Amino acid sequence: MAQEKFVYVFGGGTADGTQELKNLIGGKGANLAEMTNLGINVPPGYTITTNVCTLFYENNRNYPEGLVEQVNEAVAKMEEYMGQKFGDVDNPLLFSVRSGARISMPGMMDTVLNLGLNDQTIEGLIKQTKNERFAYDSYRRFVQMYGNVVLDMNGADFEHMIEEKKEERGVKFDNELDVAALKELVAQFKAHIKQEKGIKFPEKPEEQLWGSIGAVFGSWNNERAINYRNINEIPHHWGTAVNVQTMVYGNMGENSGTGVAFTRNPSTGENEYYGEYLKNAQGEDVVAGIRTPKPIAQLEEEMPEIYRELTAIFDKLERHYTDVQDVEFTIQEGELFMLQTRTGKRTAKAAVKIAVDLETEGLIDQKTALLRVEPQKLDELLHKRIDPDADLKALAKGLDASPGAATGKVIFDSDEAAEMGKEGEQVILVRIETSPEDIHGMAAAQGILTSRGGMTSHAAVVARGMGKPAVSGCEDIKVDYSREEFTAPDGTVVKKGDAITIDGGTGNIYLGEVPTIEPEMDENFEKLMEWADQIRAMQVRTNADTPEDAEAAVEFGAEGIGLCRTEHMFFDEERLPIVQKMILADNKEEREKALEKLLPMQKGDFKGIFKAMAERPVTIRLLDPPLHEFLPDHSELLVEITKMKAQGGANKEIAEKEELLKTIERLHEMNPMLGHRGCRLGVTYPEIYRMQATAIFEAACELKKEGLDVHPEVMIPLVSHIKEYTLMNEVVVDAAQDVIEKYGVTLDYTVGTMIELPRACLVADEIAREADFFSFGTNDLTQTTFGFSRDDAEGKFLAHYLEEEVFETNPFQVLDQTGVGQLVDIAVTKGRSTNPDLKIGICGEHGGEPRSVDFCHRTGLNYVSCSPFRVPIARLAAAQAQIENPRN
Amino acid sequence: MAQEKFVYVFGGGTADGTQELKNLIGGKGANLAEMTNLGINVPPGYTITTNVCTLFYENNRNYPEGLVEQVNEAVAKMEEYMGQKFGDVDNPLLFSVRSGARISMPGMMDTVLNLGLNDQTIEGLIKQTKNERFAYDSYRRFVQMYGNVVLDMNGADFEHMIEEKKEERGVKFDNELDVAALKELVAQFKAHIKQEKGIKFPEKPEEQLWGSIGAVFGSWNNERAINYRNINEIPHHWGTAVNVQTMVYGNMGENSGTGVAFTRNPSTGENEYYGEYLKNAQGEDVVAGIRTPKPIAQLEEEMPEIYRELTAIFDKLERHYTDVQDVEFTIQEGELFMLQTRTGKRTAKAAVKIAVDLETEGLIDQKTALLRVEPQKLDELLHKRIDPDADLKALAKGLDASPGAATGKVIFDSDEAAEMGKEGEQVILVRIETSPEDIHGMAAAQGILTSRGGMTSHAAVVARGMGKPAVSGCEDIKVDYSREEFTAPDGTVVKKGDAITIDGGTGNIYLGEVPTIEPEMDENFEKLMEWADQIRAMQVRTNADTPEDAEAAVEFGAEGIGLCRTEHMFFDEERLPIVQKMILADNKEEREKALEKLLPMQKGDFKGIFKAMAERPVTIRLLDPPLHEFLPDHSELLVEITKMKAQGGANKEIAEKEELLKTIERLHEMNPMLGHRGCRLGVTYPEIYRMQATAIFEAACELKKEGLDVHPEVMIPLVSHIKEYTLMNEVVVDAAQDVIEKYGVTLDYTVGTMIELPRACLVADEIAREADFFSFGTNDLTQTTFGFSRDDAEGKFLAHYLEEEVFETNPFQVLDQTGVGQLVDIAVTKGRSTNPDLKIGICGEHGGEPRSVDFCHRTGLNYVSCSPFRVPIARLAAAQAQIENPRN
Repeated sequence: MAQEKFVYVFGGGTADGTQELKNLIGGKGANLAEMTNLGINVPPGYTITTNVCTLFYENNRNYPEGLVEQVNEAVAKMEEYMGQKFGDVDNPLLFSVRSGARISMPGMMDTVLNLGLNDQTIEGLIKQTKNERFAYDSYRRFVQMYGNVVLDMNGADFEHMIEEKKEERGVKFDNELDVAALKELVAQFKAHIKQEKGIKFPEKPEEQLWGSIGAVFGSWNNERAINYRNINEIPHHWGTAVNVQTMVYGNMGENSGTGVAFTRNPSTGENEYYGEYLKNAQGEDVVAGIRTPKPIAQLEEEMPEIYRELTAIFDKLERHYTDVQDVEFTIQEGELFMLQTRTGKRTAKAAVKIAVDLETEGLIDQKTALLRVEPQKLDELLHKRIDPDADLKALAKGLDASPGAATGKVIFDSDEAAEMGKEGEQVILVRIETSPEDIHGMAAAQGILTSRGGMTSHAAVVARGMGKPAVSGCEDIKVDYSREEFTAPDGTVVKKGDAITIDGGTGNIYLGEVPTIEPEMDENFEKLMEWADQIRAMQVRTNADTPEDAEAAVEFGAEGIGLCRTEHMFFDEERLPIVQKMILADNKEEREKALEKLLPMQKGDFKGIFKAMAERPVTIRLLDPPLHEFLPDHSELLVEITKMKAQGGANKEIAEKEELLKTIERLHEMNPMLGHRGCRLGVTYPEIYRMQATAIFEAACELKKEGLDVHPEVMIPLVSHIKEYTLMNEVVVDAAQDVIEKYGVTLDYTVGTMIELPRACLVADEIAREADFFSFGTNDLTQTTFGFSRDDAEGKFLAHYLEEEVFETNPFQVLDQTGVGQLVDIAVTKGRSTNPDLKIGICGEHGGEPRSVDFCHRTGLNYVSCSPFRVPIARLAAAQAQIENPRN
Repeated sequence: MAQEKFVYVFGGGTADGTQELKNLIGGKGANLAEMTNLGINVPPGYTITTNVCTLFYENNRNYPEGLVEQVNEAVAKMEEYMGQKFGDVDNPLLFSVRSGARISMPGMMDTVLNLGLNDQTIEGLIKQTKNERFAYDSYRRFVQMYGNVVLDMNGADFEHMIEEKKEERGVKFDNELDVAALKELVAQFKAHIKQEKGIKFPEKPEEQLWGSIGAVFGSWNNERAINYRNINEIPHHWGTAVNVQTMVYGNMGENSGTGVAFTRNPSTGENEYYGEYLKNAQGEDVVAGIRTPKPIAQLEEEMPEIYRELTAIFDKLERHYTDVQDVEFTIQEGELFMLQTRTGKRTAKAAVKIAVDLETEGLIDQKTALLRVEPQKLDELLHKRIDPDADLKALAKGLDASPGAATGKVIFDSDEAAEMGKEGEQVILVRIETSPEDIHGMAAAQGILTSRGGMTSHAAVVARGMGKPAVSGCEDIKVDYSREEFTAPDGTVVKKGDAITIDGGTGNIYLGEVPTIEPEMDENFEKLMEWADQIRAMQVRTNADTPEDAEAAVEFGAEGIGLCRTEHMFFDEERLPIVQKMILADNKEEREKALEKLLPMQKGDFKGIFKAMAERPVTIRLLDPPLHEFLPDHSELLVEITKMKAQGGANKEIAEKEELLKTIERLHEMNPMLGHRGCRLGVTYPEIYRMQATAIFEAACELKKEGLDVHPEVMIPLVSHIKEYTLMNEVVVDAAQDVIEKYGVTLDYTVGTMIELPRACLVADEIAREADFFSFGTNDLTQTTFGFSRDDAEGKFLAHYLEEEVFETNPFQVLDQTGVGQLVDIAVTKGRSTNPDLKIGICGEHGGEPRSVDFCHRTGLNYVSCSPFRVPIARLAAAQAQIENPRN
């Protein structure tokens, strides 16, 4: 049997790999191969496959047989291409070692540069480059990276030694350190390694190489990589490839440099080259944000020929990939090398504009354009921004790193931010700069503010990926971690816990909360949505409980209301006492008296919503939550009574409170989720549902008389048994007949049910005989199918489940197609078997989640319903679903 | 189209109906027809079908067209048979009107006697009978019943008037009232009716007849009939028939009489005639328990010819029906009439003996004998009785109305008894006599004690039907409702709330709790169980957590343990502090330290259980409940802290308690049923499951070394996802390998899972690939499939659901085959599709419920598991299932 090919070489104008092998050789490796094949100048190198990573972990962190030989062969080829020798004292071949997973994971994986240097080969490098300072600077960087990345030492220790050295030499910047100082640093670094890790720094290049390869594979499973994959839902079993590439140098003097760029503006989508470069620098200097780089346009002035060559490559790559590219390049003594290309990450705004522009330019068709925008990302387009007309004084200004406005309490520590985020607090994470260790804090924060780093700094890239507002490189402010505060240019001190607002669209920072306006959708967005609407097979509705929400949703393209909850209306300050009276009623008469008072209020609610939706259908769910939700908190009341007693309070007052406590205890449920709620309330107190139905139909009839053709759809929640449906349907139809007769109008209404319990799915054929529509309540259906409640799972064990890959995704965010999906499928099939005209939708949170929308499409649903802000997401997702699996 | 036949006539030696028409003409009507056809002397009559009842309710309480004509025709036939005329002044035909549903509902339906009497026809009756006193007594009874039953008036008012009349005349008994007094009573009764109901007593016989027919149909839906059907799970849509029969009189003097009897002893099953009669009385006098009747044997002396004729009929009926009959008869001036025969209700003990005896006598075969015993009824056979060796002094002695011993607090009011029963209190319902209004109190009580009434009194019949201990007719005691106490012969006053013990097997009453012994199963029981074991296809296991339970279950025939819960062991007083330490541990190390202490304790538990089960298989479920169940109650602690604070307690102590409170709050779950429990605990704290598995395998290996071939089956609870199973299976198998290696033995063990969540059923194919067995946890599966928890449903709305027939049965008692059953079926089919050898059982409470056992049989399960006392029930139910649906 021929041995598996573990190593793919590129260089000398050809490459073993191609774009199609991306899963095997990773995104970066595939693109390096592809660029090589396109005739672009790429430093030669080789890629160790992702399979090796998998085998490495499967085999207790051992490499597969044959790998060493294949790597040696590849190194030999590199030596041939470059006319250098790995470990040679005169003309040493040096490598970079980088990770490269299927999908780019920026900042997550460790990189080692200048590999191959030691006390001997340094001499060769000096000879080659005739630049002793550069050589020792490279050597210093290599030892530092090796200690930090391969040996897992604290990077701050090395930085600290550099700071000391600069002080000692009385200089301000790294590049002011002379050869002697750099030499001393190399020696100090090595000594530090010896002391900390108890091993000698490996001088042998082979040892350095295998150490670095091992570090890349090892870093696949470091905490921040796992975090990133969890947040981005990347399967943990994919593994990473390793890219070993011959070194080129951007720090070889003023005719050298390095940069990163996008072929179009990834923030706005404008068709303009976009990027930054630094002269006489290595790539990490740009990304790390230590020196603030120059905009790419300036390269045209500084190195016009290189600029022309570079932009020609941009155009070639964009045409080849028919999409915006994110590239890294290095200029080594006047020669341009491309180090990487990949599909450029972009803001939602940019994604939309680019997709529409590329279609206009004829590079892609409408369907492809639709597929180019990740529906989930539209979220950021739809968020509020700061009112441009507001008269505001900014506290400071940084870079507009990721669009959107965010307000929250200032927090300087990522752990703390994560903790507070979990508790529902709105925080802004403020850091000097962020690193992969801050991922969880960033994920939990409303927005991110850094005082250092550019548009491609870690903070900026990650925030854009997350769709979160971010301001980076705000050097105006001084961050003091130890005092947990930052100081603005005007001397204002902002302490931990103070509220600020950041505007990622302008880079401005404001003290406190400031007026914001709802997002407007631009013409590109409108065009894309129009294409989506033309293609999609499912309707998109919204979940809205108020006229305001309903209006917003219509703006976003909602075609009706899929879920209007009626209980929120009960919490209104004026109404709650009446609601409580209803609950505490001893008998039906008293209860009906309270309900009579609620009737005109509910009628008013429904009129407002019907009006907001004009003549679009509106599905109204009858009362669902357990009644004790409307009563005071048990523990608080208990404490109050105990205190009153201990302090000898008035007996009568205590007795009254105790009476109330007893009622709360009587209504107390062990498991309210599984208790006396939904249609069970309607079955035991039909008068409540009767009142609600009457309110709905009176509202509808009154509007009908005013000439508005409303279409109420009354939804009975939490049905598990046909008898429940039959009884409640009767109550609703009775109310409808009485009201319609009273008003003397014709009214087109339907009655249906929420399918949110496993049993309802299993007897859907029985229910469908009597129901006009089904609406899947996949939140509750997920809870009962899995047998855990969202509150308890997310607070207790779900995070652990996701980390440990027990679940690939959170089933409350992404519909569990394997389990819950089967029940949905059973219900659809059984329901349509007895009622072919049954209208079926979904109104759980999954209705706005793209993968779940795709499932709904394939399962034959008529519509999805989601929160107003998710309506555009659902529209696009539904279009993509139809493109991928057309149905009639 | 021929009109539907609504009326079935019997009399003159032939009948329209037969036994086969029972569903249509009711049990009583069918048997009257059948007896007529057998040539037995039955007063002629006719039956109005149950269909009429259904049509009556469907048609808004109106009779179907044609009914009146058919009834008139039948009446004409009766007139022909009897040579009398309905409403005739000289020779009036009189009727009884009785209910008669498909299944006998003793005491539940209303009866009217002597119908046809009025101020004119009374003269004819006097002429006919030459007994003016009898005639007026009949008239008095008729008016009284009509007021009470048809016009729904308070029966006590009439009784009160009789009492007054007796006082007025200075007599003690009803039969001492003379004609004048009775005449006055009739007039008073009519005046009372006029006053109370505002209507004149109907003098027209036709009006009386239709009023009574309507009352029978109406009583089908009175509260006590509904209660009875709910308790006995009789469908509410069946309806009742009405039997109209010509009157015969047992109160026409000393050569008349009336009685009720069983063809064999319904309490012991002995082959002896059993019953009671009263001379010169009407049937209601026997049943109501107003006069204490004589045993049937005495009839042989008093009326030897009648006795011979009667017992010959007993034998004929028993041979005809091949079962014990419960008959009513009347002797009218020396002529014997049979008024009713029906299958005799019997105690479990009697049922078993009769079934075995009838088989021995060659009347039925073994299969029929097995089908003759209702499995559920075996329950009463298995209950404790009072230790016969205990030196006890009875407080009083009544009749041994229903076997078994019961202890509880004395309660005199049925509502209160029902209330306390709901709260889990053990009560003994004490009444002078019971009536259908007491059903709910009787159902909730542990036992029933009455001071009046015989072996066929309401209390006795109903208690036997319910399988509850009862002592009736305990005239030794004086019950005082108003003081809520009773006085024993020795002057002891027993007050409400005092504990007593009743022995339904002897009729003895004891003060307080007394020593009891477990039931022994007699040889008839053993024989029947042997037949069952030979026939059944499913194994029967038990749910047992202790060696004691396990031993009891083996006695009852358990073939293994299907569910051994491990958490009860954690609640042990000595262990709880260690368990709490484990829960409160900050880290894995501390937790493991606590677990190490628990290991030898758990090992000891398992050794005990393995030994008790000898070499039978034992399924042990790993820890299931949420951890906070092991911590103190939140509210109590909160009150304690609040008090301490208000009273200025020690700061340190308060702080400690607050720390504990915080932990409890951290572990608090909104819906513990849907929370961090089951294998979710194992996934987050694998060390807990590891400890338990180790304890199981060490126990098994040590016994193996001692020569006991144990078969542990480790069960992982609450799996919803294959990954959970895979991870936990690994933990168990790892522990097994380590332990087996350590002990150097071979051990036959299996690992499987409880299937108790809908999702587990849906992905059963995936799970079965890795699992050796499934065990359906139908308690939790029912909760999640319906989406309600048992605690909350039974406390809040389930009673209402059963009353209103939303559900036909309580799904926690009887498996919901329509919904939950589908999931079971899916899981069995999917599970066997990937693992044909998969062993499948059920260990929810349904495993001991006959209808559910039948379902399990049909679905192809390998075994059912239930509580020890239900094992015989399951054995018999499994045999019946196999008889009805044989499988290989």
